Amino acid sequence: MSDKLRLTKTYLARNCVTMVFIFALSVSTLTISSLIIGTLTIGAAHAQNNNDEQVLLTTKQRHVIDSFTTFNGHTLKQVNIGWESYGNLNQDKSNVILITHYFTGNSHAAGKYHPDDKASGYWDSIIGPGKAIDTNTYFVISVDTLANISAHDPNVITTGPASINPDTGKPYGLSFPVVTIRDFVNVQKSVLEELGITKLHAVVGASMGSMQAIEWASAYPEWVDNVISVIGSVHSDAWTTTALEQWAIPIKLDPLWQQGQYAQDAPPIEGLTAALMFITQIALHPDYFNQVGQTLDHQALQHAPLHDILADHNITQWLYTRAKSRASLMDANHLLYLVRACQLFLTGQGASLEAGLAKINANVLLIPADNDLLLMPYHARNAYTQLRTNAATKAASKASAPKIAYASLQGPYGHLNGVLGISQHSTIIADFLQQ
Amino acid sequence: MSDKLRLTKTYLARNCVTMVFIFALSVSTLTISSLIIGTLTIGAAHAQNNNDEQVLLTTKQRHVIDSFTTFNGHTLKQVNIGWESYGNLNQDKSNVILITHYFTGNSHAAGKYHPDDKASGYWDSIIGPGKAIDTNTYFVISVDTLANISAHDPNVITTGPASINPDTGKPYGLSFPVVTIRDFVNVQKSVLEELGITKLHAVVGASMGSMQAIEWASAYPEWVDNVISVIGSVHSDAWTTTALEQWAIPIKLDPLWQQGQYAQDAPPIEGLTAALMFITQIALHPDYFNQVGQTLDHQALQHAPLHDILADHNITQWLYTRAKSRASLMDANHLLYLVRACQLFLTGQGASLEAGLAKINANVLLIPADNDLLLMPYHARNAYTQLRTNAATKAASKASAPKIAYASLQGPYGHLNGVLGISQHSTIIADFLQQ
Repeated sequence: MSDKLRLTKTYLARNCVTMVFIFALSVSTLTISSLIIGTLTIGAAHAQNNNDEQVLLTTKQRHVIDSFTTFNGHTLKQVNIGWESYGNLNQDKSNVILITHYFTGNSHAAGKYHPDDKASGYWDSIIGPGKAIDTNTYFVISVDTLANISAHDPNVITTGPASINPDTGKPYGLSFPVVTIRDFVNVQKSVLEELGITKLHAVVGASMGSMQAIEWASAYPEWVDNVISVIGSVHSDAWTTTALEQWAIPIKLDPLWQQGQYAQDAPPIEGLTAALMFITQIALHPDYFNQVGQTLDHQALQHAPLHDILADHNITQWLYTRAKSRASLMDANHLLYLVRACQLFLTGQGASLEAGLAKINANVLLIPADNDLLLMPYHARNAYTQLRTNAATKAASKASAPKIAYASLQGPYGHLNGVLGISQHSTIIADFLQQ
Repeated sequence: MSDKLRLTKTYLARNCVTMVFIFALSVSTLTISSLIIGTLTIGAAHAQNNNDEQVLLTTKQRHVIDSFTTFNGHTLKQVNIGWESYGNLNQDKSNVILITHYFTGNSHAAGKYHPDDKASGYWDSIIGPGKAIDTNTYFVISVDTLANISAHDPNVITTGPASINPDTGKPYGLSFPVVTIRDFVNVQKSVLEELGITKLHAVVGASMGSMQAIEWASAYPEWVDNVISVIGSVHSDAWTTTALEQWAIPIKLDPLWQQGQYAQDAPPIEGLTAALMFITQIALHPDYFNQVGQTLDHQALQHAPLHDILADHNITQWLYTRAKSRASLMDANHLLYLVRACQLFLTGQGASLEAGLAKINANVLLIPADNDLLLMPYHARNAYTQLRTNAATKAASKASAPKIAYASLQGPYGHLNGVLGISQHSTIIADFLQQ
C-alpha cells in the first residue's frame, strides 16, 4: 500500500466575483460567520442564502490497492482509485459521511479544485459549510468507482478496461473482470480503512450511487448508521436491465469498438456518443427537455430534415453535440462495465432481494423523483414497503428498529431532479442526519 | 391507374375450433344471430361475448398510383400500396371509417386472411360485426403507409427505399424522398377516391396512426366528420423528436448499413434488431415488462453476465430474440423514413400547430394511455385543451362547434394499451361514432 493517503486540505476561499457584488449592494449586510480550518472567512448574515459566496476547495487524492479480489473471484493488481473529501475528520472518526456517485459522475461531489473553476461538484447545493450535509460537522468523503466512465478525465482516477494490465503492459479491454456494486463498495471500504475509519454516520448516493449506499448497509450493516438513497433502486428488475442494455448496444454496434480491442486513438466515439445521448434523454423529462426545445425554437417541420433523410433536427444536433463533447474524456468499455454492474445489482448480492434488505439495520431515507423515467418512483415505493415491514418485524422482536422515511422530489428534470433539484429537501436531509 | 381495385370480399366464417368447444358445452345456447353478406352464420345469443366465434376474413388489395407528388415536392412513379377493408360500402358511400396504422403496423387492422391464421388484425377487438367499430354498419378500410416498415412481409404492399426505382431498376435506398404524415394521408385519399369515396364518417388511428387521423381532419376538413386519436400526438415536440432518433441511431451505426446502400442479402439486421428492441421496450411499461421478467425468473445477479461481459441476462435475450425474429420481414431504411415522418409531424404541416388545429372541424375523441412512456398523455391533454378552446371559439361565433372528448386508458401495457387494451373503451368509441 502506498503512502499517498493524506487528509484533504479543505478550506473555504472567497468567491471574489460574488463578494464584489455583495459589497456593492451593502457592506453592512456582511458579518463574520465562518471559521473553517483556521481560516477566517467573511460571510453573509444568513449563511444559507449566501453559500455561493464561499468556495469549498478540494483536491483529488489517490488510493492504491496492491491486490483486490472482485466479487466474482478475480484478482486485480495495482488498483488505483481517486477520492475527495470535504470537512474534517473528528478525533474519534465518528463523523464520516460517504457520498457514492452516479453513473456518469465521479468523486467530485462538491466544491472546486480551484477558485476559478466554472463548476462545482454535482451536489454542491447540499454539501458544504452550513448546508444540508454540513462540512462544519461532518467529514464528507467520496471515491471514484472502478471502471469510472470518465477514464480519460485528468480529475478522475480509476481502474478499468482502459487501464494497463500490469501483467501484459497493455490495456485490459474486455479481459477486465466484470465488476459489481459490491466491488465499488469494497474499494471505498479500503479507502476508509486506510484512513482508520470503521464506521459511517451515513452513506448517501444518487442513482447508481444509491445502489452503493444500500449495498453498504446490507453488506456491512455494522458500519452504517444511516442511508440516503436518492433517485434509487434496490435491484435491477427486468425493465431496468434491458433499459440499461440500450446504452451498451450502440457501442457494440460501432465498427470501431472491435470487441473492445479498440486503439486509444480510434475509440468507438460515435457509439459512445449515442449512448450518452440516450442517457441524457432518459435522465431528463419532457418538462425540461421541451424547455430546451423552446430555446432552440424547435419546430417539427424543419427544412433540412424535410429535404434530407440524413439531416437532423436542431434538437437532435443539440443533444448530439453535447454528448460528443462529453465523450472525449470517457471510455466506451468503461460504460459497458458500469451498465453491467448496475444490471447485476441486487441488494446484498446474495440469494434474494428479501434476504439482502433484511440485513439492513440502518435508518433509510428514500428520495425518489416523482417524474423519474429512468428509475421510476415505484423502485423507492417498493423498497419503502419492504424496509418498513422489516423495521416493524424488528420492533416487534424488541430489536432496535431503524427509521424508514420517504420524501419525493418535484421539478422538471425527471431523474436528474436527484442532482439538480436535491436542495429542495435540504431540511429533510439535515434532520435525517441529525436524528 | 390500374384496374386492380375492387371491393374486398369480407365475410364471416365459422371458427371451427371455438364452435366445437361451444357445441361441446351446450348446443342449446346457440342461436341464429347474424346475417352477413347473405351468409347465414350460427352465432351465440350474446354477440358481444362471442365475437371470437366468428372469423372476419379479409384480403389484401393493391392500389397503384402512376405518379405521386410528395409533400416536399418530389415525384414518385408507380407507387404500389396495399389496403384492406371490413364490412360493406353503402349506396351513398357515407359509411366509411378509415383506420390509419401505427409505426410497426400495417393495414391489417382486423380479421384474418385465412380462417386458420393464428392472429387477427391488431384492432380486431374493436373492429367487426357487433363490435365498437361495427362492420354491420360501417365500411372500414385501412391502407399501408409509404415506406411501411414490413417491406418484406408478403402481406404488406408498400413503396419506399427498398422498392425498385423504375428509372434505375435498382432500389431507391436513400434517394427515396423524405415522406411525411401528409403523404400517407394523400395516398389513402387516392385509394378512397378510386373507390368513389369523398367523405369519411371517421378516421381512427393509434400512435403514428393518430397523427394521420388528425392530419386528415386538418388537411381535408370537408372530408372528415369524426376523429379518434388513440395514444396520439398532434406534433413532435423536442422530446419526441430525439426519442424517435434513438430508433434510427443503431441502424446508422451498424457497419452493414452502408449509408443505406446495403445489399438485400446483407441488411443491417443487428442495427434493425436493436431499434426494434428499443421500440418494444418504450411502447410497454414496467408493469407488464416485469411480469415477463417473472415468467423468465429474471434475477439481477445471474451467473453468465456476472462472469462474462459479453453474456446477456435472460430478459435481454428474450427481447433480442423477439426483435430479431421480427426484423427479418422489415427494412432498416424504411424504419429511418418512418422515424423521419413522425419527427416532422405537425398537424396541418403548415406555419404553426395552432393554425393546423384551427382548421379541424371534426369531432375529436382523444384516447391516451395514462402510463404511456412513448407518447405520454400530456400530448393528448394539450391537444384537448387547444381543441376545446377552438371549439368554444366556433360556438361563440355561432359556427357549428365540434365535440371534443377525452377518455384515458388504463392497463399494464403503457403505450400499447392503445392496441392491446383498446376494447375497454368499446362503448365510448361506439357512442362517439354514433353521435
